[in-house]
Amino acid sequence: MKRIGILTSGGDSQGMNAAVRAIARSAMHAGLEAYGINLGYKGLVEGNVFKMDSLADLDGIINRGGTILRSARFPEFAEEETQLKAIEMLKKLGIDALVVIGGDGSYHGAMKLTKHGFNSIGVPGTIDNDIPGTDFTIGFDTAVNVATDALDRINDTARSHQRIFVVEVMGRGAGDIALWSGIAADADAIVIPEREYDIKAIANKLTENRKNGKDNGLIVVAEGVMSAEEFKAELDKYGDFDSRAVTLAHVQRGGVPTAKDRVIASQLGDYAVQLLLEGKGGMAVGIRDGKPEAHDIIDTLENHKHKTDVSLADLNDRLRF
Amino acid sequence: MKRIGILTSGGDSQGMNAAVRAIARSAMHAGLEAYGINLGYKGLVEGNVFKMDSLADLDGIINRGGTILRSARFPEFAEEETQLKAIEMLKKLGIDALVVIGGDGSYHGAMKLTKHGFNSIGVPGTIDNDIPGTDFTIGFDTAVNVATDALDRINDTARSHQRIFVVEVMGRGAGDIALWSGIAADADAIVIPEREYDIKAIANKLTENRKNGKDNGLIVVAEGVMSAEEFKAELDKYGDFDSRAVTLAHVQRGGVPTAKDRVIASQLGDYAVQLLLEGKGGMAVGIRDGKPEAHDIIDTLENHKHKTDVSLADLNDRLRF
Amino acid sequence: MKRIGILTSGGDSQGMNAAVRAIARSAMHAGLEAYGINLGYKGLVEGNVFKMDSLADLDGIINRGGTILRSARFPEFAEEETQLKAIEMLKKLGIDALVVIGGDGSYHGAMKLTKHGFNSIGVPGTIDNDIPGTDFTIGFDTAVNVATDALDRINDTARSHQRIFVVEVMGRGAGDIALWSGIAADADAIVIPEREYDIKAIANKLTENRKNGKDNGLIVVAEGVMSAEEFKAELDKYGDFDSRAVTLAHVQRGGVPTAKDRVIASQLGDYAVQLLLEGKGGMAVGIRDGKPEAHDIIDTLENHKHKTDVSLADLNDRLRF
Amino acid sequence: MKRIGILTSGGDSQGMNAAVRAIARSAMHAGLEAYGINLGYKGLVEGNVFKMDSLADLDGIINRGGTILRSARFPEFAEEETQLKAIEMLKKLGIDALVVIGGDGSYHGAMKLTKHGFNSIGVPGTIDNDIPGTDFTIGFDTAVNVATDALDRINDTARSHQRIFVVEVMGRGAGDIALWSGIAADADAIVIPEREYDIKAIANKLTENRKNGKDNGLIVVAEGVMSAEEFKAELDKYGDFDSRAVTLAHVQRGGVPTAKDRVIASQLGDYAVQLLLEGKGGMAVGIRDGKPEAHDIIDTLENHKHKTDVSLADLNDRLRF
Repeated sequence: MKRIGILTSGGDSQGMNAAVRAIARSAMHAGLEAYGINLGYKGLVEGNVFKMDSLADLDGIINRGGTILRSARFPEFAEEETQLKAIEMLKKLGIDALVVIGGDGSYHGAMKLTKHGFNSIGVPGTIDNDIPGTDFTIGFDTAVNVATDALDRINDTARSHQRIFVVEVMGRGAGDIALWSGIAADADAIVIPEREYDIKAIANKLTENRKNGKDNGLIVVAEGVMSAEEFKAELDKYGDFDSRAVTLAHVQRGGVPTAKDRVIASQLGDYAVQLLLEGKGGMAVGIRDGKPEAHDIIDTLENHKHKTDVSLADLNDRLRF
Repeated sequence: MKRIGILTSGGDSQGMNAAVRAIARSAMHAGLEAYGINLGYKGLVEGNVFKMDSLADLDGIINRGGTILRSARFPEFAEEETQLKAIEMLKKLGIDALVVIGGDGSYHGAMKLTKHGFNSIGVPGTIDNDIPGTDFTIGFDTAVNVATDALDRINDTARSHQRIFVVEVMGRGAGDIALWSGIAADADAIVIPEREYDIKAIANKLTENRKNGKDNGLIVVAEGVMSAEEFKAELDKYGDFDSRAVTLAHVQRGGVPTAKDRVIASQLGDYAVQLLLEGKGGMAVGIRDGKPEAHDIIDTLENHKHKTDVSLADLNDRLRF
Repeated sequence: MKRIGILTSGGDSQGMNAAVRAIARSAMHAGLEAYGINLGYKGLVEGNVFKMDSLADLDGIINRGGTILRSARFPEFAEEETQLKAIEMLKKLGIDALVVIGGDGSYHGAMKLTKHGFNSIGVPGTIDNDIPGTDFTIGFDTAVNVATDALDRINDTARSHQRIFVVEVMGRGAGDIALWSGIAADADAIVIPEREYDIKAIANKLTENRKNGKDNGLIVVAEGVMSAEEFKAELDKYGDFDSRAVTLAHVQRGGVPTAKDRVIASQLGDYAVQLLLEGKGGMAVGIRDGKPEAHDIIDTLENHKHKTDVSLADLNDRLRF
Repeated sequence: MKRIGILTSGGDSQGMNAAVRAIARSAMHAGLEAYGINLGYKGLVEGNVFKMDSLADLDGIINRGGTILRSARFPEFAEEETQLKAIEMLKKLGIDALVVIGGDGSYHGAMKLTKHGFNSIGVPGTIDNDIPGTDFTIGFDTAVNVATDALDRINDTARSHQRIFVVEVMGRGAGDIALWSGIAADADAIVIPEREYDIKAIANKLTENRKNGKDNGLIVVAEGVMSAEEFKAELDKYGDFDSRAVTLAHVQRGGVPTAKDRVIASQLGDYAVQLLLEGKGGMAVGIRDGKPEAHDIIDTLENHKHKTDVSLADLNDRLRF
């Protein structure tokens, strides 16, 4: 093996650049060349690549949000013909193995290349934490902290104005961001797709709180359940809450990554390179109990699903009045 | 004069607590008593007050968002009868002068009390920067920094995904938050109520940028113009921009105040007390060229309007490609 | 069991208040009373306690640094006589069980009370991450992020001025803060007590880097090794590095806790209460693989030691040029 | 005029990149070419320059700390011979005018070039706020906010442990950072070079505070007075304060600039270009009352001195107990 290709795909997340840097530097440290592939699978098929030079390209990117390799929509990559073109291009470029950073769509691409015999490794980069085979995805910790900071701010206004705020956080189908930021921000209720909820019971609780002197409230709703506006409309049927709906939106995806996201991105990027050096491809890497770990990418995607830690929702219930 | 009352009214802003602290401490330093009035004019009429004890009530609040005195809607205060009740209550409580922190609604209350002969002073507390008689309102600097931080994050995603983001910031009828955060975040266009804009021209610029290699964009829209969703819908008529609309909403109002907001809150709160000690009431205080200054509150409200510095919009135009 | 006492002891760490809140709320949720004990073991012996009322005392503290219960030096607690006095006081106050938040000194106190037959549970609160029985202590994640943010800033100056910075971070005898912040901030070398280091080799690397175009450098030194000033003096013997020594000091200990520190504080505080409800005392709680876990506090302190993950130092070496 | 050169010199400050961007973009907007000069006056003499291309070099730098043009010590520039070499090099490169961003050392360089007949303009970039001709220097607002954030953290520990902290902030000979951050962080005393101080009186106040229930304290010392360690040693002669000395050091110089620093950097950078377009050189630009303004650089340096607003120190005294 001489050359490793690196691409980012799907939605950007904080820490992707830290992973790119770790893969490239670890590869160079082992005497390999690292090639950055611009614009995801689209750039791969088009041969839009550049040789990474450690100094010019990698210094000072560990703490930058977004992805220097950028990303692009490319539904055509679902077709076998396009996948084969990509492999042809990789061979032409002399790239022997590929590391893909992204969410499950990106993993599917890596799985397809693996099925066609090209060594590919998936690194979990998404704020949603919805990838099987890892406790945490790269970007999740930062997104949770951004959401928590926003909820802290909203709490200031809720307390000053005796208001109820319904705040929608990201997470696609997963409630992880809602759970973590909701606990961290002292939410009165956390509404996630993985657990039943009862809007009327929540409304009753808020009314009861008001009687007991807590005249403000915060409800965190995962986007996988419904929108903040919809939830607010439902809630308002059960009382006059002077409620407001807020959607945190894209601010959760960018910005300086937290130390944890940088560290796990470094661990996972380096580990992907170590696996390739041992001749292992077709893997998805992840963090389990603080250590990097690898699983067969096909098995991971076909037979496993991310499990949200619903016990955190029960915990939050015990911390309520 | 023996006792000063302090209330916050209208929307909360960062630095209000710093102003409350400055008023109370400066009063105590001069040998006066300071009374906090809970829940704005409503609490005033109801006599919902407490004596501020410097240690228990004022230590550690300078850096907290929201207002420890809280705020409440109270449209009844527009009626003369209610205003007179408030004055009666103030006399009953032995309070000789009042300092009101808030936006123009709050100032109107202070003006009414002044017209009825009760010494009241207005301190400008709002994120919108839309109060006449001051260069900056308390909370504006923090709101601008919160918005700028959010725009920085969104820029990361815009650059990674070649997207156009339309972001709505607060400011009520004023474009100040949009101007400052837009310049600070390298916005391609800043759309404010105080200046003509041409959506088609903006769309053409974005298309042209794309041709020149800048395949992302950021448009900051002041809420006083239209919503992000509306602007996006208009923009999309002139091109296929893969655009997204984001509304920053209430996160702009809370959180830890910046150093500047704490310093001007300290200057203005102290200055209000100095004026009252000199027997001067019926004033609105403000910061002009870095120094506290006072104006007749009636004249300020009736004959003056906040002027947004539109030259900043021209500046931003000169900093574009 | 009817009443639970809570105290914080030793150095403060971010998230201690989140733990206090979790213990108190979880206790109240289970129908118990929660008593806050001021000033650590000193306040315990003196009976300096107050009944926690959920609203007034616990709302809005989850995101505040320091400890609302405060802490105090109290070497007298090493004496058996003083320990017995504490138990007497607890009985007098009707407190049936105690939860202590702090580092290993605090744990020793809890262990002593346990040995005397009083049910006590230790919750790991320290930035140093040096407590056995847990993967992470409450405050560590925040301290790492504060240090990383400081290192990011210093990197800006190092790059602008072609300088070498030697930065000392906290951690007492443990290198954990140095390792995490060093990896996150792209340090050229991380010097920790748990691994051999060779200043001459580091100096040679910096000289070689300069030849290869990297004319700046960052060395993170754990306080358990030596001071930044001492390290700089050693380093300067091997070259002319235009080096600077910086000691991050106490800024690492305070401030708003990260989401993770708030979440694990909530998990651990709640878990301590669950254990007491089951009649289990004399335990040290900790987070293992994301879940709360308990161990015998005597065994933990006498037979176990915190293990720093030295593989992170090797990882950082692989990410160097 | 066809080509403008830009250099940064002296200590880096946050917002220097925003100024570089503003100068370059404003120049390009007016049809000029912009050349970046690496490594300050040293790079100027050596002809170490590059043509700035708006997209590749200027996108995404407005929010980065440090200076992309870097800086270097170059005492040789005090010699006339070297200055003349610089002018020769500028002519050779076809550069018609120069904008220098930096502190007073940088201004002296620009003044010398002006005296030799080469149009140069100084833009005030330093965290110290010690440049005449401007209310605020670029970087000052960020440095004050960084210092304030650090002081907030330290306050958490001071309150938790009943301690006195003596914290040294930067500012060279000026007390501006100490004054602003000290007021913002509720300091008990602010010690600056511009005003007499009495350590014994400060110690007495702290002792008295302790009697009145305020058992912690914060003293902010400007580096222009003495070091934190020296102040602590003096203070300890007058009481047993369990005091700690902390030096904030270089963290104050780097990091993401605040919105204000980005806005004034944009105003000043653009204004420098407007002046050059009008054929005006030999000026120092500054912000006065929110507007850019220019003064003769020779007169500014030779006949004016920065005036620290000492009234802020009196304000802080009135806000004490």
